[in-house]
Amino acid sequence: MNKIAPKLVVRRLPIYLHILDNLIRNDVQIISSRELSDETGFTAEQIRKDLAFFGAFGTRGTGYNTSFLREKILKIIGLDDQTNIVVVGAGHLGIALIRYNVTNNSYVNVVAAFDIDPDVIGLKILDVEVMPMARMKEIAEEYKVKVAILTVPSEQAQIAVEQIIQSGINVIFNFAPTKLHVPEGVYVRNANLSIELQSLIYYATSEKEKKF
Amino acid sequence: MNKIAPKLVVRRLPIYLHILDNLIRNDVQIISSRELSDETGFTAEQIRKDLAFFGAFGTRGTGYNTSFLREKILKIIGLDDQTNIVVVGAGHLGIALIRYNVTNNSYVNVVAAFDIDPDVIGLKILDVEVMPMARMKEIAEEYKVKVAILTVPSEQAQIAVEQIIQSGINVIFNFAPTKLHVPEGVYVRNANLSIELQSLIYYATSEKEKKF
Repeated sequence: MNKIAPKLVVRRLPIYLHILDNLIRNDVQIISSRELSDETGFTAEQIRKDLAFFGAFGTRGTGYNTSFLREKILKIIGLDDQTNIVVVGAGHLGIALIRYNVTNNSYVNVVAAFDIDPDVIGLKILDVEVMPMARMKEIAEEYKVKVAILTVPSEQAQIAVEQIIQSGINVIFNFAPTKLHVPEGVYVRNANLSIELQSLIYYATSEKEKKF
Repeated sequence: MNKIAPKLVVRRLPIYLHILDNLIRNDVQIISSRELSDETGFTAEQIRKDLAFFGAFGTRGTGYNTSFLREKILKIIGLDDQTNIVVVGAGHLGIALIRYNVTNNSYVNVVAAFDIDPDVIGLKILDVEVMPMARMKEIAEEYKVKVAILTVPSEQAQIAVEQIIQSGINVIFNFAPTKLHVPEGVYVRNANLSIELQSLIYYATSEKEKKF
């Protein structure tokens, strides 16, 4: 079967979750696929298809129960339990991600950061301690860590990845602008910020968008 | 017409570009949509459709000329000229993006960073100077800047956005985890790293991926 579509579905789930969190905070109990479409920019049809894919069906003419749908999506993603992650590389990017973006995420908890630089080992970023790489396996086992954010320089990325995998972590969110070589069973998502940036340039140049 | 599909096409173009750059570096002159599919994970059909959308057609049974296709995509995105951008917010994330990821991008040139903190104004990150916000308009006009990367804290994001827009910049890549209010004609892309991270959690939990 086509592997692409489900990956895209999975990428849309946290977007639905984010919107549902906001709706629930504002005491909205029901939302239609039409309204979800306005919030997300995805078509209502796409949304119905995405959710039906996982067996979540709205009531025709009414919509989805926001709390029920939120619980469903949490379960599908695997966020129903608090997920512990680590950050590998405590340079500017690692620090920024711990302080600024990742902490904006109530479902995910950074339990430790790792670095090879003795000058940063022992520092705390918020309440996250920077530890030597040698402690990664112990921490990963203790906190059942399955996801690492990789923010080391490119030339150190492959060595770091090998340590990550040896620690039993099998999902890597890679910010190093380099291709990682990993064995079967390890999932790498590349952040590709420069690719995102390039696609933005399109919108900076004249009225092209309106062609469509 | 449906606005979603073209946005996704636009997001795929830099991925094709990245692959073509590598192929050309390795003296590969022709690539089939099948091979592009192997490289990108998109289906060959999707790729042919994407490229045909912009009038780029391969030769049946042979494929695409890599240099021709690269030129075509550069033109479509608007990267045929060097694009000047600015970074607003010279904290950890701003510094990291200047040093580490954005500079990995030969098509885009950071001409200046801006901040409100007197302690960082005047510093240089690589050869990028951190300037006071008041100079943004002057720099944007001088270097024809149309794109800003926004890396200030959430609570300062809206004020910073207004200064960005007043400087004549109309495309913003927003890393502040907050919703920005912008007038018609200004394009905002939210980096949403926490949403990306959540979607990764899905792959950390057991064998679900194999269901599809």
